[in-house]
This record gives sequence, structure tokens and C-alpha cells, in this order.
Amino acid sequence: MIKEITEHRSIRSYTNQPIAPEVLTRILEAATRASNTGNMQVYSIIASSDDKIKEALAPCHFNQPMVRSAAVVLTFCADINRFSKWCEMRDAKPEYDNFTWYYNATIDAVLASQNAALAAEHEGLGICYLGTTIYTAEKIAEVLELPHGVIPVTTVAIGYPDTTTEVPLTDRLPLEGVVHYQTYKDYTPEDINNIWREKEASQLTASLLKDNDLPTLARIFTERRYKGSDNRAISRSLLEVAKSRGFMNNEE
Amino acid sequence: MIKEITEHRSIRSYTNQPIAPEVLTRILEAATRASNTGNMQVYSIIASSDDKIKEALAPCHFNQPMVRSAAVVLTFCADINRFSKWCEMRDAKPEYDNFTWYYNATIDAVLASQNAALAAEHEGLGICYLGTTIYTAEKIAEVLELPHGVIPVTTVAIGYPDTTTEVPLTDRLPLEGVVHYQTYKDYTPEDINNIWREKEASQLTASLLKDNDLPTLARIFTERRYKGSDNRAISRSLLEVAKSRGFMNNEE
Repeated sequence: MIKEITEHRSIRSYTNQPIAPEVLTRILEAATRASNTGNMQVYSIIASSDDKIKEALAPCHFNQPMVRSAAVVLTFCADINRFSKWCEMRDAKPEYDNFTWYYNATIDAVLASQNAALAAEHEGLGICYLGTTIYTAEKIAEVLELPHGVIPVTTVAIGYPDTTTEVPLTDRLPLEGVVHYQTYKDYTPEDINNIWREKEASQLTASLLKDNDLPTLARIFTERRYKGSDNRAISRSLLEVAKSRGFMNNEE
Repeated sequence: MIKEITEHRSIRSYTNQPIAPEVLTRILEAATRASNTGNMQVYSIIASSDDKIKEALAPCHFNQPMVRSAAVVLTFCADINRFSKWCEMRDAKPEYDNFTWYYNATIDAVLASQNAALAAEHEGLGICYLGTTIYTAEKIAEVLELPHGVIPVTTVAIGYPDTTTEVPLTDRLPLEGVVHYQTYKDYTPEDINNIWREKEASQLTASLLKDNDLPTLARIFTERRYKGSDNRAISRSLLEVAKSRGFMNNEE
């Protein structure tokens, strides 16, 4: 087993030690070794260490403390701008301004991000993914001065871990809860009970139920963490950003 | 540097050696250790080794030989079905049937896939991503019997490499071609020339131009590999699958 994979935990507190340029370069090189669609590399990575940029990014990530305290914030973007510019200079007509390439570039950006995350952990750094990236994609694009044809996909905060507190491994559903052999076997109510049994019986869940004054863990997700009205508002907003940035020209 | 990252190449030819169950389990365990949104694990992995299933999947992947010859085909899917069933059984109202969760689950499925790919390589296996997954998502869903709320995202073929032919490392654009520091610096024509110089001057490009009877590498991409009409048709089809499978209820 690859140690960085099995020992991964999200680190949310960093020391103020900077990342040496050669270390950052190794992390970024690792990112670019990932598989990608047609070897077109239709993604870009913005590595921001400047305090002013991090300060401007922080509210885009709902002021989660990782952004200001990270040594470097890596924003992975879908990027058809560079490839399209190249095509135009080579007498070729680029037609990548559609959902197919938003989706392909998203996959490629995420593959690169995971290589970077593991490479950073290999260097002794701690990392944390910021899912907030898609909630405020347009604001992030403005802060990072992304041109048309470029849209943020995900963000990885990296920094040397503040080791004053030990971070435990996060629980996961049992493997049989997420893996299917040959074809998908849909879940019976008994399956669902089995898959969530351990998580629901945990001390962490007990304290969450108490803090939220709710009778089930599921209701913490649906009523507190990821509410339907928010989910739909973010959906509309993200599709709007994709359209305005040139990724939704899907018509014949 | 993590060896599996720096030495990765896509392997497209496999021996007929099967993958031992404990090896496959380690690969799948590695997948589930990846970061994921809210630790909700809204993805599923379908591990197909059965010849009949691989035979049915092969045309979905345009009969690329990796599918039939792989020991196991891993199809990573966005899955809100399992989580929603759990919510309903716990008196919670799931509202994850929208683009936000298609996108979040896509990211999570891809992070899991990259961990699996690297773990497979660590076990001495070869891997190849199949980007064709999104071109025929509905057909793949039918073969794998995916229920409503589940949609294929990406596929990784894995098998023991047929080592009769050495596979060279694939070229990449220079790092400064994909990385930006602090904020995005848009490309000048000179930048574009510099970024693509080495690739355009390569022996591989020369032979591609000859085989395709085209004057530039860019035109091979725009006129042969990824044509505008195809890109837009796939965009419409994928969005339609997302809608019919319950990921596009975005309205207030």
C-alpha cells in the first residue's frame, strides 16, 4: 500500500513555514504526470502563496482558516483558453467551448490535484481539499484573474502541519457499502442499516446529534450541512458561470 | 517523489493473469481513503471481471482492446441513490438530485479513481483511463444495471502489463505551460509557441502529420480526434443522461 494514500487525513492547521520552491516544483510536476484526456492538458494550476491573494481567496472559501494559514493555495482550473489559443495560431478551429470539455477538463484537473495532494504529503506537508470552490467559482475566477475559457474546479490548501494536535483517520463506510462486483446491486433497507451502522453508533455521531438537537445523522446533512435550497442555488450559479465563461455552447 | 506517480504510463496491453481478491481489495480500500465531500461518499465503484460484462462494456468504449483484455474494469460512478435511500430511512428529505451533487460526486469519484490507479500500479498492475465513459454513459449504465441516481463518471482498466513492449513515458507540456503563480497570466503568442515547441518538433508529431496528411498538430485535434460536432453532440447527450438519471433538478 502507498503510505500517503493509507495515512491521508485532511490537515486544517499549518505552521508558518513556507514551502521551498523546489519542493513546490516537485508537487506541481507530480500533478502534471497524471493521466489526462488526449494528452491535451486542458487544465491550469494557480499556486498562490502571496498573503494578499490568500486574503482575497479566504471569503470565497467561507473564511475557512486553511486558506489564510496555508503556505500555498493550489486552485485547479478547467482551461480551454490555452489550447484554443494554440489552435487559432495553428490554423485550426477550436470547438472545445462546451459541456463535454468542461467535464473532461474537470476530470483532468481533479486527477492532477490528487497527484499533487499525495506528492505534497510525501514531502511532509498537510493538505485539505476545499469543496467551496464551486460555490463561489466566479468570485475565485475574479481574484485569480482567470480569463474566458478558464473556470475553477477544486482547491487544495497545503502547508506544514501544526502537529500540536494529532488528527485521527476519518471513518469510511465499509468497503461493501461502496463497491459492487460485476454489476450494481441496489440496496435493501437492511443493506442501508448495515452500511451506516458503525457510523451511526459512533461517539462522533452522538455528539453531533446533541449539538444539532436533531434525532438522526441524516437530518444533520439534509437540514444543516447541505440543504436542498442551497444545493439548487449553487447548481444554477455554477451552470451560469460555466455558460458565461464559455463552456456551454452545446447546440448544433 | 512517489514512484507510482513519476513512473506512470497508460498500459493498454495486459496478460491474462487474474487479480487476486486480496490485491483488488487493497486497491479498492485505497480508493475509499481519498478525500470526499462532507465524507458522504456519494460514489460507487463497479469492479467487473466477468467476461460477459467486459464484452458488453467493450462497445461502450468504442471497442478499445483494454476493456476485453483487462483483468478488472473499474467503473467509477456518481451515486446519490445510496445516500438518498439512507436519508429516507432516517426521516430526512434528500435533495441531492441536482447539478451541485453531480459535480461534487464527479470530483469525489475521480479522486477515488486516482488513488485506485496508483494503488494498482503499486501492486505491479498497469492501468488505463477510458475517457469514452461519458460518451456512452447511458449504455454503460444499462450494462452495469445502474439505478436512478447513479451515473458513470470515469473508467479505469487494470491488468498485469504485457511487458513484451516497453511503454515510454508520455511527453507533457513544460511546467510553466500549465502553472501560474499568484494569479493567472494570460498567454502571449510567444508563450504559446514556447509551450508547444518541443511537442511540435517531436518525431511523434512528424509521423502524425504524415499519417493524417495535415499541416499542423492542432488540426489533428480539431479535425480528427475531437471534432466540434461530436463535442457538442456528446455534451447534449451527457446532460440528457444527467437529467434522466436525476441530477438536474436545479429549480427553486
